Amino acid sequence: MHASADPIEAISQRLARFVTAQRLAWADAGPEAQVFLDAATRTLAGGKRLRARFCVTGWRAVANAGGDAKAIPDAVLDAAAALEVFHAAALVHDDIIDNSDTRRGQPAAHRALEAAHAESGWAGDGSAFGRSAAILLGDLLVAWSDDLLEQGLAHASHAASAREVYALMRREVTIGQFLDIAEEAAFTTAPDEEHAERALRVASLKSARYSIQHPLLLGAALAGADAAQSAALAAFGHPLGLAFQLRDDVLGVFGDSAVTGKPSGDDLREGKRTLLVAYTREGLTGDTRAALDRLIGDSALTAEQIAQIQETIVATGALQRVESAISAYAAEAQRALHDARLSPSAVDELRELAEASISRTA
Amino acid sequence: MHASADPIEAISQRLARFVTAQRLAWADAGPEAQVFLDAATRTLAGGKRLRARFCVTGWRAVANAGGDAKAIPDAVLDAAAALEVFHAAALVHDDIIDNSDTRRGQPAAHRALEAAHAESGWAGDGSAFGRSAAILLGDLLVAWSDDLLEQGLAHASHAASAREVYALMRREVTIGQFLDIAEEAAFTTAPDEEHAERALRVASLKSARYSIQHPLLLGAALAGADAAQSAALAAFGHPLGLAFQLRDDVLGVFGDSAVTGKPSGDDLREGKRTLLVAYTREGLTGDTRAALDRLIGDSALTAEQIAQIQETIVATGALQRVESAISAYAAEAQRALHDARLSPSAVDELRELAEASISRTA
Repeated sequence: MHASADPIEAISQRLARFVTAQRLAWADAGPEAQVFLDAATRTLAGGKRLRARFCVTGWRAVANAGGDAKAIPDAVLDAAAALEVFHAAALVHDDIIDNSDTRRGQPAAHRALEAAHAESGWAGDGSAFGRSAAILLGDLLVAWSDDLLEQGLAHASHAASAREVYALMRREVTIGQFLDIAEEAAFTTAPDEEHAERALRVASLKSARYSIQHPLLLGAALAGADAAQSAALAAFGHPLGLAFQLRDDVLGVFGDSAVTGKPSGDDLREGKRTLLVAYTREGLTGDTRAALDRLIGDSALTAEQIAQIQETIVATGALQRVESAISAYAAEAQRALHDARLSPSAVDELRELAEASISRTA
Repeated sequence: MHASADPIEAISQRLARFVTAQRLAWADAGPEAQVFLDAATRTLAGGKRLRARFCVTGWRAVANAGGDAKAIPDAVLDAAAALEVFHAAALVHDDIIDNSDTRRGQPAAHRALEAAHAESGWAGDGSAFGRSAAILLGDLLVAWSDDLLEQGLAHASHAASAREVYALMRREVTIGQFLDIAEEAAFTTAPDEEHAERALRVASLKSARYSIQHPLLLGAALAGADAAQSAALAAFGHPLGLAFQLRDDVLGVFGDSAVTGKPSGDDLREGKRTLLVAYTREGLTGDTRAALDRLIGDSALTAEQIAQIQETIVATGALQRVESAISAYAAEAQRALHDARLSPSAVDELRELAEASISRTA
């Protein structure tokens, strides 16, 4: 049991202990293995630990519903740590897919492994090596996330329902990610009037449910949540997650690269088919819409072209519509907690987390 | 419980039921999701089901050690099915890494997804889409393999030790795969006299332990194996697995493409640093060794060049040394089962499986 004032610090320590044990297990495997483990270690540093926070607070909301503030059990910290490791894995694979060079202001994993290839004086195509090694790095991190979860569940109550939430999360986010990249390719074959709905479906699977709803419900499951408590947390988490993703979409186009750690307008170069793009297209016709479609997804977009697209997004009212949607989803999330039988102090924390998730600039 | 005469047939049915349930769950997700699920379904067809066989026979060896032939429990079939799905995932990622166009005589998953992109009339670079989608496909299959394992373990005895074997297997194979691709790049920086040992270490992790030892021990764990029984199965499985991988290495260079379903000499084009290559290098000096190093890993090798390398491998005695190693490992495996307290009929089956694994031509 941990009564630590800051569970996020406890989770970072948990991650550090896990990585140390893994590195010890492979200490005799030679310098190549160390390159791999170094890369794995680096992916676990930093980040907002958003999913861990929602998991811990989801547990608190249910466990402390009776009024007592209980100490957070190891199983909850392990599950929260597992979510962070799983997310690191998803980002490693995402960055290969999106051809992103940076992550959290540092080189993306495939770029870091490419650099290690060069530094080690190894033979062959370093860029191909970096991508291949990063596919395997993501796989290793997924294995580690399962290990952490199972270490926690070994002596936990409600292990079966926690496993169910986790497994559903994994299937949904993976299919959501596929739908996301498919949409970049398939949008041309879908009727224009369906684009917004399709963008929201992807946002639901790969963000709202993955980043917020399931982490909350994983924590809640470990506290033995009943159906009403889980439903209240889902009714809060899902719209909040949509608002979170829409904020991400806005930052992906208008964000300050110095704050986000990613190049400005990155989503436009990558060709992401977000709600923002769908609304912009709704505000255009014929030629101007076709011109936009030609620009979005062009990895060679200049700063000037990005500025031009930004202007179009504003001029069509699409930015305003998305900002309104963010506010509406955020309000829906806040209402969901009104009458729930959950710990009032945890509910206060959830409201704060919600506020921070939506008003963030990075 | 299943008293089916053919457990492999029961496992195929289990896989089919699982896939049907998953497809039903995503039936409303639109045509793009169906493309993804079609690809997932295809990866589960065919194959030798080697890992499933070893898992089931590992269970039998322990469960029936007392003499009775018990019916195979669902947990064992689920675990065996999980191994096959995990292996399908590994192959999907492997084929991206190795740039392999075919698998089991069919298009590799990333190629099939590239073809689906073209057939659907989607926009953008189909080849990049195929690779990206296949990264996610591998991730989905890993999630499915966990789902199958956990469905089986929900009401099983010895679930914790089964999970431990499975988790160790996943970590080891992933690090083994990394060491495999690292060796293609790092061999130039390693002393010549260490090449053979390094090739064997990779073969141990990514093949001997992964393909045979761990599947056997997973089945054995589910039967509640004691330490002596597990040790006997490991002492059988590990050398057999090395022999299996060395046979694979020989087939990768000398195999008949009509039988293996892969282009002849594929391993040479990919630059795999196998024991066969290490032994060949030991039989060469200076210039001829450097000339071999330049050829191995050249994806544009002609049939004539492949024939030339094959001749060198034979002339240096490397092929003969590897064939001798296969025989020695096979004999070591057979000896390991002599005095073990295991079901005699399962031991007979293991001996047959061993024979088939080593004398195969594909």
